[in-house]
Amino acid sequence: MKVIVDAMGGDNAPRSNVQGALNAVKKYGVDVVLVGDGQILLECLKGLGVENLPKGLEIVHAGEVITMEDDPATAFRRKKDSSLTVGLELLNGGAGDAFVSAGSTGALLSAATLLTKRVKGIRRAALAPVVPTGNGGAVLIDCGANAECTPEYLLQFAYMGSFYAQKVLGRQAPKVGLLNIGVEPSKGTGLQKETYLLLEEADRSGGLNFVGNVEAREAVEGTVDVIVADGYAGNIFLKTVEGAGKLLGRQMKGMFKKNLLTKLAAVLVKDGIREFKALMDADAVGGTALIGISKPVIKAHGSSNEVAIQNAIRQGFTLAQSGLIDDITAHVGYMSMEREKMCGESVEKS
Amino acid sequence: MKVIVDAMGGDNAPRSNVQGALNAVKKYGVDVVLVGDGQILLECLKGLGVENLPKGLEIVHAGEVITMEDDPATAFRRKKDSSLTVGLELLNGGAGDAFVSAGSTGALLSAATLLTKRVKGIRRAALAPVVPTGNGGAVLIDCGANAECTPEYLLQFAYMGSFYAQKVLGRQAPKVGLLNIGVEPSKGTGLQKETYLLLEEADRSGGLNFVGNVEAREAVEGTVDVIVADGYAGNIFLKTVEGAGKLLGRQMKGMFKKNLLTKLAAVLVKDGIREFKALMDADAVGGTALIGISKPVIKAHGSSNEVAIQNAIRQGFTLAQSGLIDDITAHVGYMSMEREKMCGESVEKS
Repeated sequence: MKVIVDAMGGDNAPRSNVQGALNAVKKYGVDVVLVGDGQILLECLKGLGVENLPKGLEIVHAGEVITMEDDPATAFRRKKDSSLTVGLELLNGGAGDAFVSAGSTGALLSAATLLTKRVKGIRRAALAPVVPTGNGGAVLIDCGANAECTPEYLLQFAYMGSFYAQKVLGRQAPKVGLLNIGVEPSKGTGLQKETYLLLEEADRSGGLNFVGNVEAREAVEGTVDVIVADGYAGNIFLKTVEGAGKLLGRQMKGMFKKNLLTKLAAVLVKDGIREFKALMDADAVGGTALIGISKPVIKAHGSSNEVAIQNAIRQGFTLAQSGLIDDITAHVGYMSMEREKMCGESVEKS
Repeated sequence: MKVIVDAMGGDNAPRSNVQGALNAVKKYGVDVVLVGDGQILLECLKGLGVENLPKGLEIVHAGEVITMEDDPATAFRRKKDSSLTVGLELLNGGAGDAFVSAGSTGALLSAATLLTKRVKGIRRAALAPVVPTGNGGAVLIDCGANAECTPEYLLQFAYMGSFYAQKVLGRQAPKVGLLNIGVEPSKGTGLQKETYLLLEEADRSGGLNFVGNVEAREAVEGTVDVIVADGYAGNIFLKTVEGAGKLLGRQMKGMFKKNLLTKLAAVLVKDGIREFKALMDADAVGGTALIGISKPVIKAHGSSNEVAIQNAIRQGFTLAQSGLIDDITAHVGYMSMEREKMCGESVEKS
């Protein structure tokens, strides 16, 4: 397995990316290709105390960097020698099995969609993080790649999320829920009401284990394995979980810092505190899979540190090994069949 | 001040409603009118050890109860002798200053809109809970009354939420944020993009302190006083905060329950644990104001216990004393002026 890493993307690039790659090579025995300015990367390695490229680590030069100031839709074309564009071209050419970037989400999404392309028949790629929930995490699909969705997109997200929960998280017959403001089929906006019917039909046909609408509270508590949402609502959900985790983490920290006795208490429950933190730790997950693209692509957090990069690399080869994309590819006809059967007219318009 | 309470609405009615009313009369010196089946209420009082109606507590008989099986849109008309309908008619007639119900949200919303009516010029009433955030709570408007919204609704929600934060929470020049998936004006769906322009204009004209889009994470952390959202997204936000609070609360509980030493730790930080719980305690808030209605109406949680009912009653008279509705009424023309200036065509269609 070989993972291609955009060494220049992210707030802490290239240092965290390089260190994360070094860790991954050592820890997982995976090969890593760092893509970025060769001179800078060699200096960075030197700064980290590495004089010679270790076995399993390669550098491919790319002279440009896509920044937050670049137009995400066109950046990869205007900067053909960017680490993002060169990295994806390497992926397309078969020089690696997965691609990881902590750079601009929009630029990665555009570039992956237009250079690496979606699985044929998939209408939109979606960002599908594994969010912390009471049942050990759930796949949230989409969380921001597509602010506006059609019922058809959501149907495809449901299938892709279900395959992901099966292949990557190892869930059997994953429970798929539609994120909504009540459990009744009549709840939500037109989008949820229409999507509900499609998912119900997919469940009847045996393709999905659709358990109905899921309210955000129950989704966090862990009643489903896959949370289907448009990118706007999914992003609100994800960021709210993160915000609440931070707020309550800070509250807990304050609780232990009051005086000597509370500090003693912190020592007594230090394992518990570590578990509490781990529950909400974005770095431990590493990144978010971009599902629907024809090859494994992982978006790492913009603020990724070396641990997050290392974990995103692990996620990259796990995704490549999982056979998820083959599964999606094999079932696209099925999703399409569903689609044409269920919503003939609205599909023809789209 | 006199608060009318739907004694029959809610999972724990009438017992919790009656006990909550007793507490409120005693604690706040407020008068309370309990509306419900007289016989049942008298027996309930007896069961609580109260033989004679205490000063400040009245009972008004209403022989019917609206249940979750009734159609929320028409229940108040079909059951004219229900505690909900009778209670709102009392409010309309001036027999009390505010109305509290823990019954069906949909039924309350329909009944309040059609019996008590909206403030003239306000297009939609909104549910506006104060959600737990890092800055001591923020007004979330709407959280589920209107799954689908127009930019005009959101503009009015922004104004109403801002007045609420000022009058009830005592915030000076409340910071108003539009719940979105990024801070740039181009983020979100068409709804957010259009609303952004309206809010920006309202800010320029001095009517609002609009600080721009706010991401869910920052909203939870407490960067704004008012979070403006359509009912679908607002509900996802609110329920996610609640779910994360429950999940992390449970995690913390587990952390202290492991062994004797961790139980000792719990004793050492017991004040902190209480504060942690209080931060996410829905009962402490009591209920959610239904803003935009021409009289103060509070929706208490369906699962309200006596503490929640007591606090919802407090919220009711606080709202009545605040002058919020007068403020909204006085400024409706202003909101309308904005509206016509900014989005003439789309308004005419609606």
